[in-house]
Amino acid sequence: MQIIKYPHKEQWSEIIRRPAFNDVQLLASVREILYDIQKRGQEAIVEYARKFDKVSLDDFEVSEEEKSLANKQITDELKQAIQIAKQNIAVFHSAQKQELPRIETLPGVTCWQKMVPIEKVGLYIPGGTAPLFSTVLMLAVPAQIAGCREIILCTPPNPDGTIHPAILYAAQTAGVSRIFKIGGIQAIGAMAYGGSSIPQVYKIFGPGNRYVTAAKQVAGGIDVAIDLPAGPSEVAVIADYTANPAFVASDLLSQAEHGPDSQALLLTDSEKLADQAANETAKQLEQLPRKEWAEQSLKHSKILVLHNQAEIIELANLYAPEHLIIETENYHAVEEQIINAGSVFLGHYAPESAGDYASGTNHTLPTNGHAKAFSGVNLDSFVKKITFQEITREGIRNLAPTLEIMAENEHLHAHKNAVSLRIQNAGKK
Amino acid sequence: MQIIKYPHKEQWSEIIRRPAFNDVQLLASVREILYDIQKRGQEAIVEYARKFDKVSLDDFEVSEEEKSLANKQITDELKQAIQIAKQNIAVFHSAQKQELPRIETLPGVTCWQKMVPIEKVGLYIPGGTAPLFSTVLMLAVPAQIAGCREIILCTPPNPDGTIHPAILYAAQTAGVSRIFKIGGIQAIGAMAYGGSSIPQVYKIFGPGNRYVTAAKQVAGGIDVAIDLPAGPSEVAVIADYTANPAFVASDLLSQAEHGPDSQALLLTDSEKLADQAANETAKQLEQLPRKEWAEQSLKHSKILVLHNQAEIIELANLYAPEHLIIETENYHAVEEQIINAGSVFLGHYAPESAGDYASGTNHTLPTNGHAKAFSGVNLDSFVKKITFQEITREGIRNLAPTLEIMAENEHLHAHKNAVSLRIQNAGKK
Repeated sequence: MQIIKYPHKEQWSEIIRRPAFNDVQLLASVREILYDIQKRGQEAIVEYARKFDKVSLDDFEVSEEEKSLANKQITDELKQAIQIAKQNIAVFHSAQKQELPRIETLPGVTCWQKMVPIEKVGLYIPGGTAPLFSTVLMLAVPAQIAGCREIILCTPPNPDGTIHPAILYAAQTAGVSRIFKIGGIQAIGAMAYGGSSIPQVYKIFGPGNRYVTAAKQVAGGIDVAIDLPAGPSEVAVIADYTANPAFVASDLLSQAEHGPDSQALLLTDSEKLADQAANETAKQLEQLPRKEWAEQSLKHSKILVLHNQAEIIELANLYAPEHLIIETENYHAVEEQIINAGSVFLGHYAPESAGDYASGTNHTLPTNGHAKAFSGVNLDSFVKKITFQEITREGIRNLAPTLEIMAENEHLHAHKNAVSLRIQNAGKK
Repeated sequence: MQIIKYPHKEQWSEIIRRPAFNDVQLLASVREILYDIQKRGQEAIVEYARKFDKVSLDDFEVSEEEKSLANKQITDELKQAIQIAKQNIAVFHSAQKQELPRIETLPGVTCWQKMVPIEKVGLYIPGGTAPLFSTVLMLAVPAQIAGCREIILCTPPNPDGTIHPAILYAAQTAGVSRIFKIGGIQAIGAMAYGGSSIPQVYKIFGPGNRYVTAAKQVAGGIDVAIDLPAGPSEVAVIADYTANPAFVASDLLSQAEHGPDSQALLLTDSEKLADQAANETAKQLEQLPRKEWAEQSLKHSKILVLHNQAEIIELANLYAPEHLIIETENYHAVEEQIINAGSVFLGHYAPESAGDYASGTNHTLPTNGHAKAFSGVNLDSFVKKITFQEITREGIRNLAPTLEIMAENEHLHAHKNAVSLRIQNAGKK
């Protein structure tokens, strides 16, 4: 890994730049495919599934038989691990249910919020080399706790038309209503626009390859809500002289093995730790089955030696990492000054893996600097807060002068009328 | 207004269809302008301001002198109204601060969330016929309560280069840091991309014309966060035989006067109320200064007579209105079944105007059916929730078997390593 010592502040933005990935051409093609799905529905979806997923299915839905079979195919050991992870995620997300305020702002004017689950949500789980059953838990468990009525899941089938049993087991465990064997742009289009055998949903969650990401970007916000804008995964590790270089290296590599466009940064004020961590990373890299991906990723990863902890914190907040691991003696003092990050791991015994799987926090987090404005997925992501106001005759009398003056000054006379009429007729009703 | 009696359920979706407004051509031109602003910064912004806002400004920022002058130009009456509105909005949004949970999911594994303000936010306030100082309060008051460090405001200047004094007064009252005389696509581009004399922000709030809306849609989510996807304003009124037809008509017209593409629906099980409300609407319409706009809007507004309250509630949830006014005898029984709406007004004395200005609830709300998945602007909109996990040696020992099994099954060996190394070395550190 490249070690950069004491860079000037003017260079920081350049040094922490992420690998760019916005592809105008890709977005344009995705826009066309989504438009086609919107227009032709099921017919288009079947065609694209044949073309991109390389499977011909009449019925995309996973049957009850397939689900039962999956439950027999995975080991008891993995089942138990999934159950423990589910339990921890459930405990942490259940605690996020809120008592919402009921406030009388003026006598007779009572305002409150109500947390209401999003009725229909869709979860996307990528296919490919590894079955991401942990993401199934991270999305379905809070959806169920929130009370979403319909929780559907789309995931691309293997070439033989099957889905990895661990995904099916996790989905059943976490309360997914229906599972569909479909991936890519066509899955996002089906969930966003309806009109096919796959139910339309109001919000789509989950990671994906560049096609899925682009489809969520195009449909997101306009035709359907999405969880988060997506980007490659990333970690920043803050470590001082007390850190164990082997632990630090294993954390950097955990990120690097996600894929060639992942990024890992080590921020430290110890030159010695920087050198040791670089050596350890090189050593551990050799042992990894995904060595090739990790090597690619390490090319745009960096070790930065900075003058002091204040500089380290400033740089971390500028980078706004998805994951931030703080392996320092005084990690609480550091943590208090963090204002931009997705999920933060504290102490020498808190690897990112803990949050990726089973500590209880969510692993669907803002990447690409979006932690400056976005939260990771949490219970809020599956609910809306509807506001209510109940106003009595006394209440409207108390509000009327303010409302009438404001409406008049905004030239909205019907708005004023709606108040004046009520005041005039308050005695009659 | 058109009265439709007892439509079949199959017709509902068609009847409540909103006026379409997605303009592919517009989006493409906006994309080009934003790209140009991103590339050329200040130079491009000055050019577009000259072209679109029709003003040549060297310095977009409102001076201290202009601010002081504004405070002298508006009446004490309006100042007082703005202060009362601000106070009510502050009380309701302050109450939304949460105690966040701190949970030990397993012994030695402690997880929590921290609410952190978004550091830099930008508010957009449209220009045009009416000065929307109420929207200044609705956005700046919660931003200040959340603790946002930099709250900037952009609004297009009048042809003489001035800003309406009520906007300047409201902005100062509500804690806006800096105000810029710039509107349209160029304002959104300046706030999204930086590199000009207008500060870059992490999230953009506020309504606008179709150019602003398109610019927020294009930049939103990818390059900057935005408050909500936008659409024309709308109301649904649920009324029964106990409702006052004049009140109902004034509520429908309050919506209609917003603009030609606004939509108002009346849902009732009383044919008599339907007829009376239609007559009252026609009568009150004649008195309105904005009669022409309201007339346009009423063309795609409708009165629907349905068989019973159950049907009314089903249709209201299908429509998912931005504003929902419930003027029925048993409004609490109705309100409990509402799952899709932005803001709900309860009783015969709760006109939409109350929430538009001063009841305390926010008036920046999801339109166009987005209430199915989105909340209106509230304190949450100005903060992120960062998750933390602190894990001790005991904690990692308790988690290790689960983490190792899950990582292995997802083929993520570095993830497993990060745990195994810590367990092996737990004694040594």
